Amino acid sequence: MPFDPKSTTFEPLNEPTGSWPVAKVTLPIPMGEVAARTAEDIAAARAAADFDPVRIEDTLRDARIDNASRKSVMTILSKDPIFGNWKKRMIHMNREQQMRQSHFACRRLLELGEKHEWTTHEIIEAALTLDLQSPITIHWVAFVPVIFGQGSAEQIEKWGQKAMNHEILGCYMQTELGHGTNVQQLETTCTYDEASDSFILHSPTLTSTKWWAGGLGTTATHGVVQAQLIIKGKRYGPHLFFTQLRDMDSGKLLDGLVAGDIGPKTYGAFGGLDNGWARFNQFKIPRDHMLSKHASVKKGGEYVKPPSDKLSYGGMIFIRSQMIDRTGWMLSRGVTIATRYAWVRRQFRDPSSKDINDVERSVLSYPSTARRVLPLLAKAYAYILAGRRMRTLYEDMAQQLEEGNTELLADVHVASSSLKAYCTKQALDGIEECRQALGGHGFSAYAGFTSVFPEQAPAVTYEGDNIVLASQVGRAMLKISGELESNPSTKVAATSGFLKAISQKNAIPFTQPKQASDWYNPQVYSAALGLRAAQLVVDLRAEIKSGRPFVDLSYECIEVAKSHAEFVVDLWFGEGIRDDAERLGEKECQWLNKLVTLHALTALSRNITPLVLPASEGRSLAGYATNQAILTPDSVILLEKAIRELVKEILPQVIGLSDGFGWLDWELGSSLGRKDGRVYEQLMADAEANPLNHEGAVPALESIDKVGVYKYGSSNIGKGVPDWYSTEIGPLLKAAAKRSNL
Amino acid sequence: MPFDPKSTTFEPLNEPTGSWPVAKVTLPIPMGEVAARTAEDIAAARAAADFDPVRIEDTLRDARIDNASRKSVMTILSKDPIFGNWKKRMIHMNREQQMRQSHFACRRLLELGEKHEWTTHEIIEAALTLDLQSPITIHWVAFVPVIFGQGSAEQIEKWGQKAMNHEILGCYMQTELGHGTNVQQLETTCTYDEASDSFILHSPTLTSTKWWAGGLGTTATHGVVQAQLIIKGKRYGPHLFFTQLRDMDSGKLLDGLVAGDIGPKTYGAFGGLDNGWARFNQFKIPRDHMLSKHASVKKGGEYVKPPSDKLSYGGMIFIRSQMIDRTGWMLSRGVTIATRYAWVRRQFRDPSSKDINDVERSVLSYPSTARRVLPLLAKAYAYILAGRRMRTLYEDMAQQLEEGNTELLADVHVASSSLKAYCTKQALDGIEECRQALGGHGFSAYAGFTSVFPEQAPAVTYEGDNIVLASQVGRAMLKISGELESNPSTKVAATSGFLKAISQKNAIPFTQPKQASDWYNPQVYSAALGLRAAQLVVDLRAEIKSGRPFVDLSYECIEVAKSHAEFVVDLWFGEGIRDDAERLGEKECQWLNKLVTLHALTALSRNITPLVLPASEGRSLAGYATNQAILTPDSVILLEKAIRELVKEILPQVIGLSDGFGWLDWELGSSLGRKDGRVYEQLMADAEANPLNHEGAVPALESIDKVGVYKYGSSNIGKGVPDWYSTEIGPLLKAAAKRSNL
Repeated sequence: MPFDPKSTTFEPLNEPTGSWPVAKVTLPIPMGEVAARTAEDIAAARAAADFDPVRIEDTLRDARIDNASRKSVMTILSKDPIFGNWKKRMIHMNREQQMRQSHFACRRLLELGEKHEWTTHEIIEAALTLDLQSPITIHWVAFVPVIFGQGSAEQIEKWGQKAMNHEILGCYMQTELGHGTNVQQLETTCTYDEASDSFILHSPTLTSTKWWAGGLGTTATHGVVQAQLIIKGKRYGPHLFFTQLRDMDSGKLLDGLVAGDIGPKTYGAFGGLDNGWARFNQFKIPRDHMLSKHASVKKGGEYVKPPSDKLSYGGMIFIRSQMIDRTGWMLSRGVTIATRYAWVRRQFRDPSSKDINDVERSVLSYPSTARRVLPLLAKAYAYILAGRRMRTLYEDMAQQLEEGNTELLADVHVASSSLKAYCTKQALDGIEECRQALGGHGFSAYAGFTSVFPEQAPAVTYEGDNIVLASQVGRAMLKISGELESNPSTKVAATSGFLKAISQKNAIPFTQPKQASDWYNPQVYSAALGLRAAQLVVDLRAEIKSGRPFVDLSYECIEVAKSHAEFVVDLWFGEGIRDDAERLGEKECQWLNKLVTLHALTALSRNITPLVLPASEGRSLAGYATNQAILTPDSVILLEKAIRELVKEILPQVIGLSDGFGWLDWELGSSLGRKDGRVYEQLMADAEANPLNHEGAVPALESIDKVGVYKYGSSNIGKGVPDWYSTEIGPLLKAAAKRSNL
Repeated sequence: MPFDPKSTTFEPLNEPTGSWPVAKVTLPIPMGEVAARTAEDIAAARAAADFDPVRIEDTLRDARIDNASRKSVMTILSKDPIFGNWKKRMIHMNREQQMRQSHFACRRLLELGEKHEWTTHEIIEAALTLDLQSPITIHWVAFVPVIFGQGSAEQIEKWGQKAMNHEILGCYMQTELGHGTNVQQLETTCTYDEASDSFILHSPTLTSTKWWAGGLGTTATHGVVQAQLIIKGKRYGPHLFFTQLRDMDSGKLLDGLVAGDIGPKTYGAFGGLDNGWARFNQFKIPRDHMLSKHASVKKGGEYVKPPSDKLSYGGMIFIRSQMIDRTGWMLSRGVTIATRYAWVRRQFRDPSSKDINDVERSVLSYPSTARRVLPLLAKAYAYILAGRRMRTLYEDMAQQLEEGNTELLADVHVASSSLKAYCTKQALDGIEECRQALGGHGFSAYAGFTSVFPEQAPAVTYEGDNIVLASQVGRAMLKISGELESNPSTKVAATSGFLKAISQKNAIPFTQPKQASDWYNPQVYSAALGLRAAQLVVDLRAEIKSGRPFVDLSYECIEVAKSHAEFVVDLWFGEGIRDDAERLGEKECQWLNKLVTLHALTALSRNITPLVLPASEGRSLAGYATNQAILTPDSVILLEKAIRELVKEILPQVIGLSDGFGWLDWELGSSLGRKDGRVYEQLMADAEANPLNHEGAVPALESIDKVGVYKYGSSNIGKGVPDWYSTEIGPLLKAAAKRSNL
């Protein structure tokens, strides 16, 4: 930066987009050394990268669409008059305004898609990147896949094509006011009426009201309803039914049903999605509206069973298996912001400094910050790469299922449950941890977390509550370990391979570390992760043997599932890098592999107790004696040392590594996460543009409705006084003064 | 409940307040058994309480004002046309609307205060209970105390009285864009000008811009500025200066300064508070505007030093010591909602049930839920009661300081730093954990967490970043343990008493538990908490001895500070109950003491490793051998069993215990936390009243400005269709249909 910070005057950074003018600064002010240094600091860190972040980005971002297409979509959005300042505007809107904008955005997205000839995947990518759970997003995520996954060939032809074209917009109605997790107990009924050869959908009670379905509130023209199938008085359990909901022209709800929006979501999340409720009152639909890929009802009421109970099960784990890498990406946003800002933020000189003119230390250079943030960097990469493996495995399984083969089903079910429960929770906690690592400025909405943490918040409870999923993992571990005990040659998936250590000596060879660097050996840390998971299953089995029923062990299952997930993530993270090694490049793999190590070591450190606690009677792994611990105390001290030194080694590469996620400034929407490090200039520009600082600038609804622009940037910025001062504050002071003079 | 749920029709629950009409239901619907049972369930749980929750409430709520006065204030607010539906309305507003409402609320609060002759404490209580960080709140919390604590007698007379009367509204400007934690490095200068015998406030750089001060953005007429005092070229470090900011009549900023609002806060928090920024341009203030209780500047520029450096220190720990019980109260809101809802929410029949008509299990009856929520109940009580002790100790110290006695200062500094860092973080995590324990419905804003978690979020970074405070605790532990080593008879406060175990054999006598119930002995669990904290300090000392500088141990200090805090909270929680034993009553104390035990045991379980890891060379406590662990493996298994059985024992009392916090439905603002358990009816009523469901009901700004009422409740509820359907969705579908027919 070839300028003198003392004489260079601060210029605001906001770029004009659409009708959003540049903010102007009233009082000229020198930048000063502190603000000027941030750009230099981050440029130096970037120059110090030992590898090419773009190679990582290109490899990882090659998903639904390739990275070049992604960047082209983002560039169009970032220059669009509506979407250019979208992320800054959304945090200034209330729910009703966000919902309006969301409808408007859906149209605008499709207009852009048409104009630029985007594929469906490009449209979805564009929708996701807006931080907007919108009717369009949910249509693609929750409605279209159900039609295609559960509909018959004729049904797919009839409705699927219309859905793909956006001629109809759909929602998926499963959960009810009274029941979510327990699907079998849903109260909505769908009764076959022989006289008219049709079905009658009905909501018999208040708690049978369908609840939460995205898009249902104000938008969906059609929907799929899960309801108890009843034929001639006999119950056949929950089945899926397709139905129209609204008149295509007027948007009015059809007679025989009531529906609406359920209200705002916690922390302001999902403001652009109309999660809705609906009740049916003896609502008639044609017989052929039951989705009948697997089961169907014939004229007259004969029920045709699905060939296998397991076949319709694939859909339930589809979404979970798609969630893993998404949680990694969400976490990577927090991590990118945290590493960049904590790198350029300096606070306190080093205690060894005696000169007041010495520059202060980077906040990220303090071990208390680095040790918190770098493992989160590792986790973000871990979930992205393990998530890619999860998707591949799901696809393999889906293909098998098509052929009637259920071999992979159990493994994919357990792995997707385990990773969904673990990764969503770790990502949510990790995002907020990143925000906290920013210190005071992390509390500003301009830090960019308002569209990350709240959006991630429901992931821990939807698509299978994490705690319920943990019990399912625990149950599977008991089952497989039991099978291994009775037959040591039972074939188990790699993700459960560690269970062999329970009954087979040396199933997991482990060498006690003699020095810190021994912990960097994958055979050491992966073994330790496996032994810990196995030990926790042994403990669970011991509790069962002591007579406690499984339903009372749901708390213990949480830790079993966590340790299982950490074993699997470690396995797949490493494999994911190997799979893409050529494309990534040697140096790139080398640094990513250090993150594999960091992920594994900090996962061990998270709960080391099972490895250091001498085994009680009946609780030792095969080959270990009662009263023997798996790890020595010195190994634990060496583990912490190994983590410390690894964090230190990775620290200079951290800007390059977070660049590797490939987030554009526009996508992050974070003033603290700016790629060029100019955080203070951006915060000031944001504050100057804040509508509260402009007389009469609080917008009427009409003005933001279409163009979505706040009237910022007038020349009296910073001098403005809100027009309500005269109506509220002034009179208050005068009344007080009057009182005190009485 | 003497009704038949099958024939009873659901009636909405919203009560009319002011001009907010009752929501009407379009489609009559039977309640059904699931919805009807919730009220019965909670009534039965309440009847089963073994004690009187009101005695607990009356004791704990007796703080700034007594409980009867509190209830009278709340009742007035809950029936006020503006505040009656306040909590439901705020979540529908954007930042600008909330800010407007906040100004309006400040006036309204003072009007109500005048009308009902409220004391200042009653006004503050009313302001706090609105979940509204407002200019008035910050005036009382951050401005008035500084004037009274740091002003001279003349200054207090001159400005303090006006501030008390609300003739002026103030803010406190300390942190800057570039510096927060490191106060010594603030860049704003205040230079004595001998010629005019006055001070000149100046902001030399962009990063010297004052940032975050609440009330500064749009409201404050006056403020206290922290700036580097410079006299004749010599720097005297940061001092406090009083100054006017805005014209009293017009509200316009005075010449020579610019200021504004810094923008929205994360997750929508603090929407009613105008956190602001300000820059001074050679802004002149009179010499007597330096707050001069301790230091002052004489005419001509002579600097009068404070008698002791430590005297101005009290203010820095005042706020921290006031934060502890507040975090407990915040957590108790989440806990109250979680216990009530998880109690009445039923999901899945017990696996032993063979009859489909058997009632499903309460979600709270699952160990995975109870084991998560009940320790949080214990924590909430713990922080409230320990926080009361913290306040008392602060007052004792303040009194001593007035007399020039600094004996308690170090102890209060360490304890307040430790508890602030620990309790704010635990409460924040605990609140979100409560939300997650609600399952899917916890994601609705009507669950009531939108005004809890975001409001608690900044507490982990403000008033001393938690991680920085942890280092201060670590440093103090090293210092005190060093003093004890060189002189065993050194007097140490009870809060650091455990450090004796490092160098004095049997300083903490500990008996290994032989059965689970041995863990219920306070001498056992408190000793274990002390031994763990001591062990962690030994480990920290070992790292120092190995040559690592203290600044590199900031990560290790986090766990040292946590364990210290858990020891102190346990100590003060128990003492707090004993102090109020008579007022609380015998049964009430008995149950609260079970929570003391639960708090201690789960605190141990949180990190048991230091107690079970055999001591490495040079890391054993006095009286313990190298390679000896403090706890046996069986004791750990017994600990988990003890927790499990204690949770089971407390579970039937949990509704009574959460009633003991004394939250009124109006205060909680939670549809899931209704005291009468009617959660489904309330959720339905909220959804029906949701403005999105009413044609043309999205309010213009003007209509909510004064009266703050959404035009809800028209008779077409649930049938409404948003007016934007025809402009956005309809055309989209038509265009798609047209395209597909081409």
